[in-house]
Amino acid sequence: MAEKSVYRFRVEPQEVDFSLRATIPALGSAVLNTAGVDAQRKGFGVDALNRDNFSWVLSRMALEVDARPRQYAEYDITTWVNEYGRVLSTRNFTLCDAGGREFGRAVTQWCMIDLAARTAVDLTAVAETHAQALVDAPSPTEKPRKVRRVEPTLEAEHRVVYSDIDFNSHVNTMRYIAMMFDLLPIERAAQERAVRLDIHFLHECRFGQTLRIGCELQDELALFEIGCGETAAVRASLTWR
Amino acid sequence: MAEKSVYRFRVEPQEVDFSLRATIPALGSAVLNTAGVDAQRKGFGVDALNRDNFSWVLSRMALEVDARPRQYAEYDITTWVNEYGRVLSTRNFTLCDAGGREFGRAVTQWCMIDLAARTAVDLTAVAETHAQALVDAPSPTEKPRKVRRVEPTLEAEHRVVYSDIDFNSHVNTMRYIAMMFDLLPIERAAQERAVRLDIHFLHECRFGQTLRIGCELQDELALFEIGCGETAAVRASLTWR
Repeated sequence: MAEKSVYRFRVEPQEVDFSLRATIPALGSAVLNTAGVDAQRKGFGVDALNRDNFSWVLSRMALEVDARPRQYAEYDITTWVNEYGRVLSTRNFTLCDAGGREFGRAVTQWCMIDLAARTAVDLTAVAETHAQALVDAPSPTEKPRKVRRVEPTLEAEHRVVYSDIDFNSHVNTMRYIAMMFDLLPIERAAQERAVRLDIHFLHECRFGQTLRIGCELQDELALFEIGCGETAAVRASLTWR
Repeated sequence: MAEKSVYRFRVEPQEVDFSLRATIPALGSAVLNTAGVDAQRKGFGVDALNRDNFSWVLSRMALEVDARPRQYAEYDITTWVNEYGRVLSTRNFTLCDAGGREFGRAVTQWCMIDLAARTAVDLTAVAETHAQALVDAPSPTEKPRKVRRVEPTLEAEHRVVYSDIDFNSHVNTMRYIAMMFDLLPIERAAQERAVRLDIHFLHECRFGQTLRIGCELQDELALFEIGCGETAAVRASLTWR
């Protein structure tokens, strides 16, 4: 059995909004960077997997933020993998301020993809090889919830440009989250309330495609669907407490 | 006289394009973060200035990148202030890889603004107070060049959204640079050639405004103008070697 790992971050000026606090997309980006770096250090990062023509793909994420840290604040992200299912691997996170007080947490679920066949790899075999990397600790919150069909009350279009795409020419995960926040009334996007994000990736979008972003906005809840062509690419929800 | 200061960075996954190398906007962002953190540590950051209702505003930047570092590469940014003119303060940067080889450099020029009067402060008095922070070393390259009028051959519009704005509700400097790269043919934006960026900020754009981004594209040169309403807000050039 392995131990949890801890990584130090600092809220940089380009990560804050006019409230001088880190945005949710910025905190989500730090969570995903932690996943990438931790997997790489432990020998099962995308770099190692690519040698076998495999890769990790994020399938679902739940991110809860109780309070957003201020510009230049240092904070720690603790991460651990606690489960290999047949298709999904579960990686967990807690976010703590410099005083050790937890202000957020996340649960992510990942598929391993065979890049040649473009199919998900059965993780049963992988789980045996990586068993020593598992940590015997529960997820810090409920796993990502499925998001139901969305009836948009707000809509926008976005053509995928150079600054949206990742190393794979697919839209960067955090750009989807930024697009969702950009569609909200700005006072909702920036409000200082505890929030939970559930996001579910169904289909990858590419450079040059035109995305439709739809939002069904309710009092304490916003549901999102991002589509390219006839296909739903991403569904998500934001729940404020 | 002071010494140069050095800050360590790492190329994070959301900072690379499909070439797996850091983008120019990401490197520019690291340069500007270095300016912010170094000024803060030395006691004349935006936080200290705000107590007197003053702030630093970036007026011009020149950034040269010979080769873009790869994902997860660590690199150092060295910074020093070497000049206070009447209106502009000059802060310099070199970017070196983990082996100490210089791969880029920047020169930035800053005004100090009186936030109440919205006018530039005469830096003569400030120069005396901050004289001990000056470093007696020349700028590592030519200062930012003025950009002449632009005759666009490519054009786009962009409405300023939540993810574009900074703590001041103005468009984040690096978002302007991203908008310029997004307008280029993608093979130009991502090409692995040495490039120099000169950028000149004339007017601040705000949340909700619609920007016009124009580009005059030539063989080894691209000229840009970003306007809001009738006003030119930013002019810039990219020169490839």
